[in-house]
Amino acid sequence: MELLKQRILKDGRALSEQVLLVDSFLNHQVDVKLMQACGEEFARRFADAGVTRIATIESSGIAPAAMTALAMDLPLVILKKSVSSILKDGIIQREVFSFTKNAPYLLTLKTHFVTPGDNVLLIDDFLANGEAAFGGIALLEKAGAKIAGVGAVIAKTFQPGMDKLRAAGYRVEALAPVKAMSEGKIEF
Amino acid sequence: MELLKQRILKDGRALSEQVLLVDSFLNHQVDVKLMQACGEEFARRFADAGVTRIATIESSGIAPAAMTALAMDLPLVILKKSVSSILKDGIIQREVFSFTKNAPYLLTLKTHFVTPGDNVLLIDDFLANGEAAFGGIALLEKAGAKIAGVGAVIAKTFQPGMDKLRAAGYRVEALAPVKAMSEGKIEF
Repeated sequence: MELLKQRILKDGRALSEQVLLVDSFLNHQVDVKLMQACGEEFARRFADAGVTRIATIESSGIAPAAMTALAMDLPLVILKKSVSSILKDGIIQREVFSFTKNAPYLLTLKTHFVTPGDNVLLIDDFLANGEAAFGGIALLEKAGAKIAGVGAVIAKTFQPGMDKLRAAGYRVEALAPVKAMSEGKIEF
Repeated sequence: MELLKQRILKDGRALSEQVLLVDSFLNHQVDVKLMQACGEEFARRFADAGVTRIATIESSGIAPAAMTALAMDLPLVILKKSVSSILKDGIIQREVFSFTKNAPYLLTLKTHFVTPGDNVLLIDDFLANGEAAFGGIALLEKAGAKIAGVGAVIAKTFQPGMDKLRAAGYRVEALAPVKAMSEGKIEF
């Protein structure tokens, strides 16, 4: 997606070979028009996939996932990283390790919001090691859903997540696949 | 906002005099079309307020805040509850107590994303005790911004947040002000 790649080149910052800072338009300050364009692009790419529901992982995926749900006219389910005291009944959980935060968290889904007939498109801001995506997929499948695919706004394709997901048979679309990075340099 | 009130009466559940469960359309499963309607209603109510930026508090406010930012064609800033290891520079923080989770958290803002000329509209899913709203306001004001107002999708007006904000001079708009609740009963 050219618009997004240009924005990453303009406002993103490669801090190292691993770390891409995009907090000025994606995950702290959010350019909602750009997120809307991302949502429309996901809708276009997965138009033939029979998607019945959008899911995302709390919280940086919420804005692009909400715009995807809007573009596809589908409900959104947010897989939660922390469980409110009033959300205790009928939940399933899975431990996921966050490399960014260097700590595990319990990804949580109320099974009531995903049904066995569902074909879910999982949207997230980043795809890197694939931990969050595999955790989300495991929860959704445990709830009886099929996975229509995984959509990442940005994928660091030099990290193993995308390859592992595809090797496991999942369709993956990345709007901006980053092939390589080094300090100050980003390559698609 | 009649559409929202009807939805709360249809799908919300008062679990007690304090706790309103709306996780089927607001904060776990999300009806994005309803959120879009909420965003448009906030845009209408604050049309004359000279808003330059939308802010929200991670994470249940993100969907309605993103739709408000879209309706008003403004940037969104998400005040973070947890700080990524790559988001350390130029941040300000404030401790906020969450009654829902019965624990404090550090609300965090990179000052770079709010400037002294900004006039910020703070959007959140719930207004109850006002802890989160006052914490967000304190951070935004510390960054030099003015507060155009606070918009809550749902306000429990029998709890002190709304009155305290208004007493402190802030404009507050609630799309669904809940006057009283008891098990199975919700009153606007």
